[in-house]
Amino acid sequence: MASFIQVPQDSHFPLHNLPYGVFCTADRPRHRVGVALGDQILDLSEIRGLFTGPELCRHQDVFNQTTLNSFMALGHLAWSEARRTLQVLLSSSEPVLRDNAALRSRAFVPQSSATMHLPADIGDYTDFYSSRDHATNVGTMFRGKDNALMPNWLQLPVGYHGRASSVVVSGTPIRRPLGQMRPDQTLPPVFGPSRQLDIELEMAFFVGKGNILGESIPIHKAHEHIFGMVLMNDWSARDIQSWEYVPLGPFLGKNFGTTISPWVVPMEALLPFAEPNVVQDPEPLPYLRHHDPYTFNINLSVSLKGEGMTEAASICSSNFKYMYWTMKQQLAHHTVNGCNTRPGDLLASGTISGPDPQSFGSLLELSWRGSKSIPLGDGESRTFLKDGDQVTITGFCQGAGYRVGFGTCVGTILPALQP
Amino acid sequence: MASFIQVPQDSHFPLHNLPYGVFCTADRPRHRVGVALGDQILDLSEIRGLFTGPELCRHQDVFNQTTLNSFMALGHLAWSEARRTLQVLLSSSEPVLRDNAALRSRAFVPQSSATMHLPADIGDYTDFYSSRDHATNVGTMFRGKDNALMPNWLQLPVGYHGRASSVVVSGTPIRRPLGQMRPDQTLPPVFGPSRQLDIELEMAFFVGKGNILGESIPIHKAHEHIFGMVLMNDWSARDIQSWEYVPLGPFLGKNFGTTISPWVVPMEALLPFAEPNVVQDPEPLPYLRHHDPYTFNINLSVSLKGEGMTEAASICSSNFKYMYWTMKQQLAHHTVNGCNTRPGDLLASGTISGPDPQSFGSLLELSWRGSKSIPLGDGESRTFLKDGDQVTITGFCQGAGYRVGFGTCVGTILPALQP
Repeated sequence: MASFIQVPQDSHFPLHNLPYGVFCTADRPRHRVGVALGDQILDLSEIRGLFTGPELCRHQDVFNQTTLNSFMALGHLAWSEARRTLQVLLSSSEPVLRDNAALRSRAFVPQSSATMHLPADIGDYTDFYSSRDHATNVGTMFRGKDNALMPNWLQLPVGYHGRASSVVVSGTPIRRPLGQMRPDQTLPPVFGPSRQLDIELEMAFFVGKGNILGESIPIHKAHEHIFGMVLMNDWSARDIQSWEYVPLGPFLGKNFGTTISPWVVPMEALLPFAEPNVVQDPEPLPYLRHHDPYTFNINLSVSLKGEGMTEAASICSSNFKYMYWTMKQQLAHHTVNGCNTRPGDLLASGTISGPDPQSFGSLLELSWRGSKSIPLGDGESRTFLKDGDQVTITGFCQGAGYRVGFGTCVGTILPALQP
Repeated sequence: MASFIQVPQDSHFPLHNLPYGVFCTADRPRHRVGVALGDQILDLSEIRGLFTGPELCRHQDVFNQTTLNSFMALGHLAWSEARRTLQVLLSSSEPVLRDNAALRSRAFVPQSSATMHLPADIGDYTDFYSSRDHATNVGTMFRGKDNALMPNWLQLPVGYHGRASSVVVSGTPIRRPLGQMRPDQTLPPVFGPSRQLDIELEMAFFVGKGNILGESIPIHKAHEHIFGMVLMNDWSARDIQSWEYVPLGPFLGKNFGTTISPWVVPMEALLPFAEPNVVQDPEPLPYLRHHDPYTFNINLSVSLKGEGMTEAASICSSNFKYMYWTMKQQLAHHTVNGCNTRPGDLLASGTISGPDPQSFGSLLELSWRGSKSIPLGDGESRTFLKDGDQVTITGFCQGAGYRVGFGTCVGTILPALQP
């Protein structure tokens, strides 16, 4: 599969990928929908007239919107058709775009000259807790090894509602939060900047077509509602969180910022990297059962670069395949009670930790609740984040001679405001 | 204060109130902004040219939108000006509208011929837990009297993120949810329709002007960001909730439906009913301190009408003044970490229970976890809701010879779908 646009072997964005995003440029500030290919963006608003298949010929305007929501809402047949159309239009043997110099110069924008935006208006954001290793690590720290997993954890994908307003696109700085904490349980709570600011290595998927209130999405249909995936860093203030979260769950310890990568990788690009699902014991209730592989081999890594450091240090290498609950199970569970979802809703994995300590997806786990220092080289180390730290998550699937990647998800910590 | 529109003494909507809502009519299905007066609606899209004050003269289009979000975003000076303008236009001594028969016939719509809609696009919905009696009751049931309140409860207004997509307007039927429960802790969990479907008597406020990510709304400015209030029924499936909620909080036990009343009562209409705040001991941290009265005397009641009943039975009489944490404290706390709010965000009180059993705001408390039957007359009784039950919440402030009311918040239970 080759394109007339040159794509290096280690690019995250070959013709096999074709992720969707929303961008603008200095000379054209209007937000518009594009597809990444190599180091270029194909501006779909400029070529929308070329989507002439049966699903899209009457909906070309979805590529002239400022977000992906309308395209997401069309459903999986339209997404497949768009992908097939793009793979033809971009292939080295297809002259329509290749040989039209005027159209090419309008339709291609170098990624280096574009600013990326959130790909969708996110109506609701839900965060799951679906890595068994992560849940076990956190449970062991706070409740001891024998009670690490709560009784419900193996029976259903535990999740909670997050804050949609503070989901931001990669590159947006994150302000260290102020808040109420109780570091010494024998003294009253105190107020100030969080001293246990953390990352969470996550991935998330966008809901495409939603469901109406009072009905559910059965598990055998769930994949038809999953549009695509992004990387996520769910920044967490552990000291605020631990004081506030009983009994109603995390709130201000989480909702000051959640960063996602700008390119939404379609599920069709990921299906070649599906692997058999984790064997679930006990077997879940029937509404959560499916046997088709929907566990994805996505290499994930996190690096940290402090202000004084000359280069970023790798702090974690994990994999999305470590998830215990699949995205199909998450979506079927979320809607089984009739909860409605809408195009653009974001459902996240929870921290993705693997079995070995190098694969733990949070500083909380890597430093084992601050009890050990994480070396970064050059004499630098961390337990939690310092002001000025830049954290980068990246991830890709390795094919034979190509990669289907997610780009990066980056955020830098600004100092707290004066209380 | 009298209008040329006749308003009975017990009406919820005199000239003192002037709540905002969004409605449509059979002959004009476009959603539009209106104000309730007696049994009429004044269609603001028809009279938007009459808002000629300094704040609104260049923003008359906010009254030609399909939601209140744009008006909310203008801020408290614009809300005050709109209210003053409406009180003049509607007064018995002002001829502009009174004597213009053609304009009056276009601009007034009987409430009986209108369909009400959600007043705003709700970006995020947050539910607090701010009634001390409710938190104590629930804590006593689940943890015993000595550990009823968690240590954080008296130090901060505990809250959590709810689901925005399933907030619906009064009158929308509520489908009994299916879900996973574990009624017998010695057996595995089961799947089926909830058998402990409950109400929660709540009120909620809409955020007007929001704040940007990374900054906060200080408590002495919080009132400038609070647009107005509605009644709320936060339907709850107690059996689903109790199995799922540890450790990340309520999720599917809540997000199948949350009903609000359609008319948003402005804070200016409620200020005459402000009372001294509850004395808080321990005194909260400085970011939560305010001394101006922001506790409101709003009479609240709940009635239930089963399918076989000839009339509704009152099951609860409570009052919004029983809240321990004020709305100013809730908003200051919510944003102290830099969490951004947006116009149309909805922040709810949590169940409003008072000190005596007749004032408990949920069936969970009224039946004391199902241990006693709630009599409804005619031989009917309940512990939790049955299919076909219609629940109505209403509320008003009693002035001297007039009421500032909220109308009703109604929902009827549909049977569960077949699994």
